[in-house]
Amino acid sequence: MPTVIKNGTLITASDTFKADLLIDGEKIAVIGEGLETEGAQVIDATDRYVLPGGIDVHTHLQLPVGVTESSDDFYTGHKAAAFGGTTTHIDFAIPNKGEPLRKGIEAWHRKAADKAVIDYAYHANLVEWNDAIIDEIPSLLDEGVSSIKALMAYKGRLQIDDTGLFRTLQKARDCGILTMVHCENGDAIEVLIQQARDSRQLQPKYHARTRPAWLETEATLRSIALAATADTPLYVVHMTCAGSIDQLRYGRAHNLKVMGETCVQYLFFTEDDLARPDGAKWVCSPPVRTKSDNEALWRALQVGDLQAISTDHCPFLLDGTRPIEYEGVPYQKPGKELGRDDFSKMPNGLPGLGDRMIILWSEGVAKGQLTLNRFVEITATNPAKIFGMYPRKGALAIGADADLVIWDPNEKKVYGQALSKQRVDYNLYEGWEVTGWPEKVLRRGELLVDGEQWFGRAGSGTFIRRAPGMIL
Amino acid sequence: MPTVIKNGTLITASDTFKADLLIDGEKIAVIGEGLETEGAQVIDATDRYVLPGGIDVHTHLQLPVGVTESSDDFYTGHKAAAFGGTTTHIDFAIPNKGEPLRKGIEAWHRKAADKAVIDYAYHANLVEWNDAIIDEIPSLLDEGVSSIKALMAYKGRLQIDDTGLFRTLQKARDCGILTMVHCENGDAIEVLIQQARDSRQLQPKYHARTRPAWLETEATLRSIALAATADTPLYVVHMTCAGSIDQLRYGRAHNLKVMGETCVQYLFFTEDDLARPDGAKWVCSPPVRTKSDNEALWRALQVGDLQAISTDHCPFLLDGTRPIEYEGVPYQKPGKELGRDDFSKMPNGLPGLGDRMIILWSEGVAKGQLTLNRFVEITATNPAKIFGMYPRKGALAIGADADLVIWDPNEKKVYGQALSKQRVDYNLYEGWEVTGWPEKVLRRGELLVDGEQWFGRAGSGTFIRRAPGMIL
Amino acid sequence: MPTVIKNGTLITASDTFKADLLIDGEKIAVIGEGLETEGAQVIDATDRYVLPGGIDVHTHLQLPVGVTESSDDFYTGHKAAAFGGTTTHIDFAIPNKGEPLRKGIEAWHRKAADKAVIDYAYHANLVEWNDAIIDEIPSLLDEGVSSIKALMAYKGRLQIDDTGLFRTLQKARDCGILTMVHCENGDAIEVLIQQARDSRQLQPKYHARTRPAWLETEATLRSIALAATADTPLYVVHMTCAGSIDQLRYGRAHNLKVMGETCVQYLFFTEDDLARPDGAKWVCSPPVRTKSDNEALWRALQVGDLQAISTDHCPFLLDGTRPIEYEGVPYQKPGKELGRDDFSKMPNGLPGLGDRMIILWSEGVAKGQLTLNRFVEITATNPAKIFGMYPRKGALAIGADADLVIWDPNEKKVYGQALSKQRVDYNLYEGWEVTGWPEKVLRRGELLVDGEQWFGRAGSGTFIRRAPGMIL
Amino acid sequence: MPTVIKNGTLITASDTFKADLLIDGEKIAVIGEGLETEGAQVIDATDRYVLPGGIDVHTHLQLPVGVTESSDDFYTGHKAAAFGGTTTHIDFAIPNKGEPLRKGIEAWHRKAADKAVIDYAYHANLVEWNDAIIDEIPSLLDEGVSSIKALMAYKGRLQIDDTGLFRTLQKARDCGILTMVHCENGDAIEVLIQQARDSRQLQPKYHARTRPAWLETEATLRSIALAATADTPLYVVHMTCAGSIDQLRYGRAHNLKVMGETCVQYLFFTEDDLARPDGAKWVCSPPVRTKSDNEALWRALQVGDLQAISTDHCPFLLDGTRPIEYEGVPYQKPGKELGRDDFSKMPNGLPGLGDRMIILWSEGVAKGQLTLNRFVEITATNPAKIFGMYPRKGALAIGADADLVIWDPNEKKVYGQALSKQRVDYNLYEGWEVTGWPEKVLRRGELLVDGEQWFGRAGSGTFIRRAPGMIL
Repeated sequence: MPTVIKNGTLITASDTFKADLLIDGEKIAVIGEGLETEGAQVIDATDRYVLPGGIDVHTHLQLPVGVTESSDDFYTGHKAAAFGGTTTHIDFAIPNKGEPLRKGIEAWHRKAADKAVIDYAYHANLVEWNDAIIDEIPSLLDEGVSSIKALMAYKGRLQIDDTGLFRTLQKARDCGILTMVHCENGDAIEVLIQQARDSRQLQPKYHARTRPAWLETEATLRSIALAATADTPLYVVHMTCAGSIDQLRYGRAHNLKVMGETCVQYLFFTEDDLARPDGAKWVCSPPVRTKSDNEALWRALQVGDLQAISTDHCPFLLDGTRPIEYEGVPYQKPGKELGRDDFSKMPNGLPGLGDRMIILWSEGVAKGQLTLNRFVEITATNPAKIFGMYPRKGALAIGADADLVIWDPNEKKVYGQALSKQRVDYNLYEGWEVTGWPEKVLRRGELLVDGEQWFGRAGSGTFIRRAPGMIL
Repeated sequence: MPTVIKNGTLITASDTFKADLLIDGEKIAVIGEGLETEGAQVIDATDRYVLPGGIDVHTHLQLPVGVTESSDDFYTGHKAAAFGGTTTHIDFAIPNKGEPLRKGIEAWHRKAADKAVIDYAYHANLVEWNDAIIDEIPSLLDEGVSSIKALMAYKGRLQIDDTGLFRTLQKARDCGILTMVHCENGDAIEVLIQQARDSRQLQPKYHARTRPAWLETEATLRSIALAATADTPLYVVHMTCAGSIDQLRYGRAHNLKVMGETCVQYLFFTEDDLARPDGAKWVCSPPVRTKSDNEALWRALQVGDLQAISTDHCPFLLDGTRPIEYEGVPYQKPGKELGRDDFSKMPNGLPGLGDRMIILWSEGVAKGQLTLNRFVEITATNPAKIFGMYPRKGALAIGADADLVIWDPNEKKVYGQALSKQRVDYNLYEGWEVTGWPEKVLRRGELLVDGEQWFGRAGSGTFIRRAPGMIL
Repeated sequence: MPTVIKNGTLITASDTFKADLLIDGEKIAVIGEGLETEGAQVIDATDRYVLPGGIDVHTHLQLPVGVTESSDDFYTGHKAAAFGGTTTHIDFAIPNKGEPLRKGIEAWHRKAADKAVIDYAYHANLVEWNDAIIDEIPSLLDEGVSSIKALMAYKGRLQIDDTGLFRTLQKARDCGILTMVHCENGDAIEVLIQQARDSRQLQPKYHARTRPAWLETEATLRSIALAATADTPLYVVHMTCAGSIDQLRYGRAHNLKVMGETCVQYLFFTEDDLARPDGAKWVCSPPVRTKSDNEALWRALQVGDLQAISTDHCPFLLDGTRPIEYEGVPYQKPGKELGRDDFSKMPNGLPGLGDRMIILWSEGVAKGQLTLNRFVEITATNPAKIFGMYPRKGALAIGADADLVIWDPNEKKVYGQALSKQRVDYNLYEGWEVTGWPEKVLRRGELLVDGEQWFGRAGSGTFIRRAPGMIL
Repeated sequence: MPTVIKNGTLITASDTFKADLLIDGEKIAVIGEGLETEGAQVIDATDRYVLPGGIDVHTHLQLPVGVTESSDDFYTGHKAAAFGGTTTHIDFAIPNKGEPLRKGIEAWHRKAADKAVIDYAYHANLVEWNDAIIDEIPSLLDEGVSSIKALMAYKGRLQIDDTGLFRTLQKARDCGILTMVHCENGDAIEVLIQQARDSRQLQPKYHARTRPAWLETEATLRSIALAATADTPLYVVHMTCAGSIDQLRYGRAHNLKVMGETCVQYLFFTEDDLARPDGAKWVCSPPVRTKSDNEALWRALQVGDLQAISTDHCPFLLDGTRPIEYEGVPYQKPGKELGRDDFSKMPNGLPGLGDRMIILWSEGVAKGQLTLNRFVEITATNPAKIFGMYPRKGALAIGADADLVIWDPNEKKVYGQALSKQRVDYNLYEGWEVTGWPEKVLRRGELLVDGEQWFGRAGSGTFIRRAPGMIL
């Protein structure tokens, strides 16, 4: 039975218009005025916006980190995502050292298989490099993976040196894979962390001080220059500071094919938050910066200097000594308390997958900082295009997957942990008054969320094979 | 009888997908797969792109200039536009000195009434300012006019001083009207022209030398600063040089609501063209510049520093001493020969309304310089949004006017005067090999152009009342 | 009898070294180690710096402003200057409207003749323009005047339109005269002032709000562009904001011969000072801005983006209803109280001629913000070079005028009105603790100041005829 | 017997004035007018300029490179320097791997001891790093060495990774030593070289193509960011491209203590020269770039964005299979022919120590591109200040070493190998017509060069112990 969404205002990355939308099976089949509803399930969207489901291209579900792992898995994370209006995400498939990239993908397939509710894909993730790994890159396309991330930070663990990064860029160019980079100078950071430890500067605020913005700014230009030299596109992940934006803009103005994202948290929080008693909540890498960096990121989203917004969702319990409940099931893993006495031992990361669309709408669209179309563009359409899922995902397009959010722009709520479905014991936006709410969420035509109701079924999410993407 | 466009690939400013499109009356009614064609007129768009008709927001049809007038009127210009894939334009309604702005609008209504084929609108155009004229500005909205242009050049004729420009910006802010500016320092230009004359430097190349890029660059920042001070949006017309782009980007990076357009000719031509024996063809203001300025403009279109592309279409016969024929009717008016011995007496302007989409596609889309979506965005969607015609115009949206182009991306032609329908005796792109062609053109559902066939009827074009636009 | 300054450390704009310095008559004759002192007057400079007397190129002594005039004349201003380590200044010679420029010079000669103690020169100052005035410009060199200022602000009073400015630049180029510009958009400012008045926004803070930084920024680029077009050097006076610095740097990076100065007050004060109950003290044009502008100016002085620092000294009594005493003589003129109820009626200007060197040393050199050499460069050498007094002035050079300051870097004082010799009833730096003090001051070899003692004689100052200057 | 230089025009980094100059022993003792000449040796400098001897802070004399060494030693290089107006240089003291830095200094002392004619100093030069080497850095000051260079290029040979560079910067900060950096991304370059070899792209032009400007630009910002993080000054050696200048300016505008030099060859030559049949002459690292880079470097020297100019003098015989003669003695070493069939085997480097002052004067001062004072500033005064030899060197200051050049601004010659005294078989400036010539050259008061005559004695040059320098 087809579904017709009636009387909504459809929002694409460029257009806004009233129309009915007919879903046939999993796909958007027809958009038009006065569509027939006979024999169809009808969803009334009067006074609502209808937008493509959000795509979060930067998440870490059930990511092993030392003795623990990130607290959301492919079920709880997906449930949170869906309640937040996100219907697709791309996780990083990370092999163990010594393994080929393919092993990471296999491991991630195992994590996702029985749990997934929304659709998902993977970026390959280098944890080391050698000739065999470089040579493996083109085969990623056979796995449906068209992007690969290298990290310039985490010395001795995940850091790829410039030789490896450059060879990755060249190989990626040859086969049409997009290279993503975590831009921070890991060498200098490692020295600073060791020195902070030596001086017993161990509180969370030293997490930021040992990762200063200049070290991100330079790594941003470094990766841009390497991509320029390799003549291939680049996507800079989680940009946090004005300096990095300056360099991205410099590259783009010099005709380079470089793109970038920020994450929601970097628009709002600063080192001052790290200095709070509960500063551990904000420990992520790169760190939150300053108010003036927040503003630079907003402006970059507005004028298109940044192409996408993600979350780097990677939550850990603030207090892993106490179990929490999720759907009535107790959950407990070590968390931020591991770094209580030493920031450098604290698992890096924070929750956001479920919060992203709600917070960005409320602070962006509702406050006039972002147009409706730009909201769709950076949360869904550009992510789909850049990462080769377009037009199946990210668009209100005929033939596209019917991943849809029915958004009530007038709903007001006090946001926080009680509303978020993330499996973690805190929320960064606790107590924020939000305007606008994702009332209903459909994934491939199936209603996952309706108000407070949850219809998502573990295992119903699909792995999305991705082709080479577009350069924006 | 409805019309169904079958099997085309629809292009919006953000999306690309295969679908059928049903036109009901003048409007796009349904977009979907496998639409019923029974009882409908069918247009086959297999292997074709379907895009919103072009919108040229900067034209001058039948513009009186001294003893002559621009050679295209609302019929011939519209025919050329239609054959070039443009279905809406905005002309400048220019009163005589001493008259209220309304008189310009009335005069333009008279020009357009019996001739118009495509849809059209007007910008109000200041030719002087005083309290009465400033006070008249809000009433423009009653006339369906939501933008007003001031010129910082043409000293003693059209130039508005900074007091007038600033007061215009303030008044426009108060009523939601968008201010457009022609940015050149008319004071200095007038001195330079007089000096060139005094030194008998009278060839066309002195047209460019008396209007150097620095004088545009500063006027661009000046208008931006005045708009910043008035706290109102600004739209800079026909930007030609890297310096102006630098300043526009500076303003946007400083959180200002400033936008800009370039025109097609500024992407290709340089002062060297003015120095050719037939240099008169390129005499327009601001002048064509340098190769490096061309490149800066391309880049600005690609990354979104510029929001739109227009033509400043204002053709004059190269040799007004010889009649030409148009639809079998002879036409003759004085033209560029008026300035044969003195560039400063030459009517400023050149043809482009019919060429814009074809040349920009061929040089931009076909050569990989512009994406399909960006092409639609800068030729149609952004113009409609900025100038308050959206979503009626500029979108493949339900309820929007069925202004459509069926574009054949594979057609190759040798372009030039023989193909263009502009009423003038030369074409700037003579002999250029173009790839891609607007095969069929519909305006409000009515087929105007089908290959070489012309179905346009004089007087069928409609004046589009415009509301306040959007800030991009 | 010659004078030998023994054992000092000599500071030039580039060099620092210990040496004795012998003055023969009015000139520096010898610099060397162990100079003979027999038959010479000896000044011991052990532990002292010996530097060229300061040159303040931007002052207004006894400037008529409406019903009053600036409160320092060529005697009191010179005395204050000398006590502050300044031995030469350049005032603006301002004719009445309708008069040739020469009349301004004559008038200023009359003001200076019997009063001058330090040496002085004039800039010509346009108050209007016409062909006769433009044609008069080259003759300024015969008067010993090699620079001319145009104001882009003070609509209807002093403002020169762009035609006049451009013609001035061209004429100045032809004869080697330097054009100086006051960069603010007077047209928009006049509108804002009238609107502030209409809304009864009359306190001093509205002085700043009606002269926003954007209007200075654009005028800076405008004057730069006009100078670029005229192919002639430019000197931008009293730059106050980051935006103007951006544009100056933009011009210099684009190979233009543009230079700029700031004034001491713009390094320290902000709009917050204008909002104080005694905000009238800071009413000058352009206005004081923000902390971030202060910082941009400091940086520009440090790296050489700005070439000079002056004062725009133009004091008025804060309370002109009460007489003050100067050398035992009562003085009273209307002052800032004229604008008590309306900022726009307040005489614009503030004192600084005596404060400049002391404050800049203490805040700059003593606090490590400026090197000794850079201090000399921006307070003396560059001013002398730019304005054609070099090497007679501004240098510890053989044959140069023996204008010298013996500076005690260790002296600490609490600065303020009690120490300053300016004839005015307030000091901007009241209560500031300063480090470093101009202990002895010589002008052409004659000791003017020795600690608290004053040896200056009215009428002993000399008019300095200036040649075309250098481009830095 | 003292020496008096009569009637010359003295040029300092800031001042220009006529004076006699008396040398007492090795020092400048007196500067004055009409100095006594009785009992003194007199040098007539009428119509001549007297300037501080040049300081070249970047040279490689007798540098072992594979099977050969650079062809000038401390005698021939010094003779060439002296004839070119340079009286001090700083060479890089390079230890073998496994040795402490001190060993490099000792080795260089042995090279210099019996040969030196002009004065000289050393920079320490990292060839690897470990804790012991880092810990050794402060002791360099005891050796009279106050600067240390790290190379970001030459992977596997000299390249220091970011950890090492950052730790060097921190240690250098703690003891007041200046860190210098060769900025190129050696990792990527090594990959490109290997790939060029694999594709048999072996001509000299591939030397430039395997070291693209982006890789210098990024390394420039990287070193700046690391210095910013370490809060210590930085000096970027041999900057070659507009991108690097952009980043240096970015750093300086952001309040960082970063400085830079270019070398003479980068002002004139381009990749086109490498493509010539004798392209091997221009093989140096970083490579020569483009005309627009040349222009950016000129501008940076003019406005002070660059602080110094050096040569990176490191000559090799173009044809090492043929002996040349130097002072009648045959000389032969392998040279550029080593790389005839493979650019990557070609010794990198080119001559310039003797050419620098002559070429820069002729192309800079004589052609109006540099002022006299700026010439002295960047060739002598700034180098002395930055590298802790000031005021002993680099100044016409009392007590300074009498290192002087008597420069004839009117002499014209056709320059080239016949005039240069460099021990090598080619000259980059062969056949250039030069205006201006260093007629007489004194080092510590001793006449080394007088026209064509050579009075230099091997072993008379002195090692200059350097203290921490200044930040400019």
